[in-house]
Amino acid sequence: RRLLASSAAARPTVLSADERVKVLKPLVDAGWRTRISGDERDLIHKDYKFNDFSEAWAFMSRVALIAEQMNHHPEWFNVYNTVRVTLTTHDCQGLSRNDVDMALKMEQFASTFTSTG
Amino acid sequence: RRLLASSAAARPTVLSADERVKVLKPLVDAGWRTRISGDERDLIHKDYKFNDFSEAWAFMSRVALIAEQMNHHPEWFNVYNTVRVTLTTHDCQGLSRNDVDMALKMEQFASTFTSTG
Amino acid sequence: RRLLASSAAARPTVLSADERVKVLKPLVDAGWRTRISGDERDLIHKDYKFNDFSEAWAFMSRVALIAEQMNHHPEWFNVYNTVRVTLTTHDCQGLSRNDVDMALKMEQFASTFTSTG
Amino acid sequence: RRLLASSAAARPTVLSADERVKVLKPLVDAGWRTRISGDERDLIHKDYKFNDFSEAWAFMSRVALIAEQMNHHPEWFNVYNTVRVTLTTHDCQGLSRNDVDMALKMEQFASTFTSTG
Repeated sequence: RRLLASSAAARPTVLSADERVKVLKPLVDAGWRTRISGDERDLIHKDYKFNDFSEAWAFMSRVALIAEQMNHHPEWFNVYNTVRVTLTTHDCQGLSRNDVDMALKMEQFASTFTSTG
Repeated sequence: RRLLASSAAARPTVLSADERVKVLKPLVDAGWRTRISGDERDLIHKDYKFNDFSEAWAFMSRVALIAEQMNHHPEWFNVYNTVRVTLTTHDCQGLSRNDVDMALKMEQFASTFTSTG
Repeated sequence: RRLLASSAAARPTVLSADERVKVLKPLVDAGWRTRISGDERDLIHKDYKFNDFSEAWAFMSRVALIAEQMNHHPEWFNVYNTVRVTLTTHDCQGLSRNDVDMALKMEQFASTFTSTG
Repeated sequence: RRLLASSAAARPTVLSADERVKVLKPLVDAGWRTRISGDERDLIHKDYKFNDFSEAWAFMSRVALIAEQMNHHPEWFNVYNTVRVTLTTHDCQGLSRNDVDMALKMEQFASTFTSTG
């Protein structure tokens, strides 16, 4: 039994062309990119750089909480102070509002650390 | 803005007398208690003992995920391998289904560590 | 088997009277207190208040890392956005340099969140 | 200032040929591999599969603690219940005792979850 029935459980849908223009602009301005070489998927990704592992881990710990809350989990790679994030929505085979919401939360969480690149 | 509207957002209600008999029995059998000396509140609590801090922290890390997911947060005290948990629902001034659900999850999480007391 | 032999493994010693004056002053200025009513121990404690559980948990996640690194674990109580910390050194029955080092790290970690009380 | 001077701070050295035979055998038996296609580095890697994100995150939370304790950080990728780990020691450009120690700890941590593949 799932503990929560949530609005996120509503099947996510791919962003429309108009939505993409609107919501992706601020993310691209913040360093997010929409393609990975050799990866055909419709996705967004960003490399975060922190001062050390402790900061990277604090960031990841907050993201883990919302990932479970949203039932939407990032693909992420970490080594020491680097966190490379890839977001896409498997259920709709593309970018959904969930990816944008999570990216915005990541921006907020990372902003508490001064030298985040 | 909350990312999720969830069923947990429905105002929790105090367990009925019949529900209490049914749901609290297995928890009491598992070591949960319903009173703390000097604390007037309607609550359940348990002391978990792990082998070391690493295990206690892994347990807490899983509980943290469901606490945010349920929007229901435990009162807990930790030192090294001990985690003392108190559950009650502020919104209804008593024990609700949320407390029982969380206690059952804690039992499940703690059971992965062999010598949990 | 311990993975690391560390300088922290050197038996900690109680701060001298002169050391106490010097190192406790900035901590008291930052809101730390040296007594808890009804607790005879030589300790320092502070209540941290964050904006939400996510921030409190990020703080605790960083402290957990240094607790294991120092092999010195705080007594802490959490509910939602509050973290109540008590530091003392069992091995020397009093305040040691480890407690001061940990308190300073906590101050640093908490400072990344704007509205920490 | 580093909180700890530890034996791990001693510059790690590459495992000798004899050591490799001895220490890598049990790891290979446990599913670790020594090559990644297209990666020239001397490394070991393994894909862990858990039941869900909660278990994967509990595993990672324990590894994070020893990573800071050892000052030796894994390269790891996670999505939902999968954790892909790569271990190598940058300081000696190859496999050191630190990688073996960490892999053994990971095996221990993962073993608490029944269906780990």
